[in-house]
Amino acid sequence: MATASEERAATQADVKAILREGVERTDAALERLLPPLTQVPASIHGAMRHSVFAGGKRLRPVLVMQAARMTSAARGKVGLPEGVEELGAAIEMLHTYSLIHDDLPALDNDDLRRGKPTCHVAFGEAIAILAGDALQTLAYQTLAKLKCEPERAVKIVGLIAEATGTVEGMIGGQVLDLEGEHTKPTAESVAAIHRAKTGALIRVSIVTGGVYAGADAEDARRLTEFGTKAGLAFQIVDDVLDMTQDSAHLGKTAGKDVASDKATWPAVFGIEQSRRDAARLIAEAFTTLDPYGTAAEGLKAVARYLVERTN
Amino acid sequence: MATASEERAATQADVKAILREGVERTDAALERLLPPLTQVPASIHGAMRHSVFAGGKRLRPVLVMQAARMTSAARGKVGLPEGVEELGAAIEMLHTYSLIHDDLPALDNDDLRRGKPTCHVAFGEAIAILAGDALQTLAYQTLAKLKCEPERAVKIVGLIAEATGTVEGMIGGQVLDLEGEHTKPTAESVAAIHRAKTGALIRVSIVTGGVYAGADAEDARRLTEFGTKAGLAFQIVDDVLDMTQDSAHLGKTAGKDVASDKATWPAVFGIEQSRRDAARLIAEAFTTLDPYGTAAEGLKAVARYLVERTN
Repeated sequence: MATASEERAATQADVKAILREGVERTDAALERLLPPLTQVPASIHGAMRHSVFAGGKRLRPVLVMQAARMTSAARGKVGLPEGVEELGAAIEMLHTYSLIHDDLPALDNDDLRRGKPTCHVAFGEAIAILAGDALQTLAYQTLAKLKCEPERAVKIVGLIAEATGTVEGMIGGQVLDLEGEHTKPTAESVAAIHRAKTGALIRVSIVTGGVYAGADAEDARRLTEFGTKAGLAFQIVDDVLDMTQDSAHLGKTAGKDVASDKATWPAVFGIEQSRRDAARLIAEAFTTLDPYGTAAEGLKAVARYLVERTN
Repeated sequence: MATASEERAATQADVKAILREGVERTDAALERLLPPLTQVPASIHGAMRHSVFAGGKRLRPVLVMQAARMTSAARGKVGLPEGVEELGAAIEMLHTYSLIHDDLPALDNDDLRRGKPTCHVAFGEAIAILAGDALQTLAYQTLAKLKCEPERAVKIVGLIAEATGTVEGMIGGQVLDLEGEHTKPTAESVAAIHRAKTGALIRVSIVTGGVYAGADAEDARRLTEFGTKAGLAFQIVDDVLDMTQDSAHLGKTAGKDVASDKATWPAVFGIEQSRRDAARLIAEAFTTLDPYGTAAEGLKAVARYLVERTN
């Protein structure tokens, strides 16, 4: 029998392989989907590629793939559904567009992202605004070509557009975050911001991965609950890392949340309580996947990584 | 028999009724589709509504409706296909998002649009950037709920996302326009910018109106040719109006194109030649609709209005 430390080592090896596979497949899809630098007008394609290929961890595409793999496995199919990496790539485009616009001088005014100059620093504000716009557009071009039944593709477009919108979606969360700056965050305000700003896109990555693979209503309900809890846990850990790690390690400006009185989980609950909350949320999330048995192991391994990572 | 002037008067009355119907249906759809001002976060919904309800003429939705009506009529159906105004509303959201971002200080830096303060003047730059983003997102939420077969909805999403993208689409045209400022425009550069920046969205309004109503490949080919020519004629007339009308009449800053050496048709060909080109393009466009007979009258009336308007 394997010892606990052997088991832990095996799991770590598994998640590393899962993450590596996710990065490789996603990067290959993004390389195919983004117009080449030779395509006129070159400046905007350079700006889009600068931000998309800045070394992102592709966590959302990895979640898409693992949710799709689990949902397929529950239907007796082995492996990843064909073409699911294009769904992951579309979601990564949306994530990147939100980062480009969030970093603009009129918003967070950040010069550094993933250890590189932000888009507007490298390409100027006008091109950065349009590059963000264009990544949102390209995401929907990509979704319109998904290799699944049109019913599923339309459903995925709708779910993703809701999750990135103003009503409890990504843009709504950005607005709440902006408006809450320099006022004291409360448990309610920080939960609402996290649920919308980062939680909704993580949740929809997991749900649409399932829908792509043929999830029924009960699958979708479980994936939604799992994704909601994993998404909040992810953001709590992000907040903790911002307070406890340095900029070089994070690849972005550390300590900015505190400096601008951002609504963060540790600002309301403290660091130790935040760590406990993240662990509890992941444990709760895991129980929603009990019916999938061992088919859920990949998705669980990634979720565990989200809260145990150090950058 | 009706005299020529009676016929002209009858046509003018028709197009006025068509335009009024288009505005009313589109505005009602937009009113339903845009989150209310009471919806949190209120600021962004206020900004979205400010720009969407700033008195736009809804020309693109009118084109959607008339192309749909013609395509339906060719299949023996009378009237507008149910729910087509939501497609028009989605395209109007995309048009408005592009105006909000185009007006930003980092781009055209315009304070006045349709006679009102631009979005960033009224709501600040951060909210204006996010309101533009959100209108793009809401357009795809809307398209995902279209009342047509999923195959058609997916096709429409793809066509619209291509037409608003970087490769010969709206964003690509904005980039070419930005980069061409303060360099002498040529016949080739101005044609490429117009085809992409405004032409592509007008063309796709006409094509997707047809697709919504069940256009086959031959319909789509004719609508594409019609839309390409009508779109270019529309923009040529826009350029001429910018040079010949005052700001109060246009509801936006007149003469800006000349002041910033923008690539315009009259800058290359002169005003008289531009007027002749617009009339010739519309005449050519009309011949592509010959097979539809009287069913094409509404679409033709609107296209004629596009080149005969004075604001």
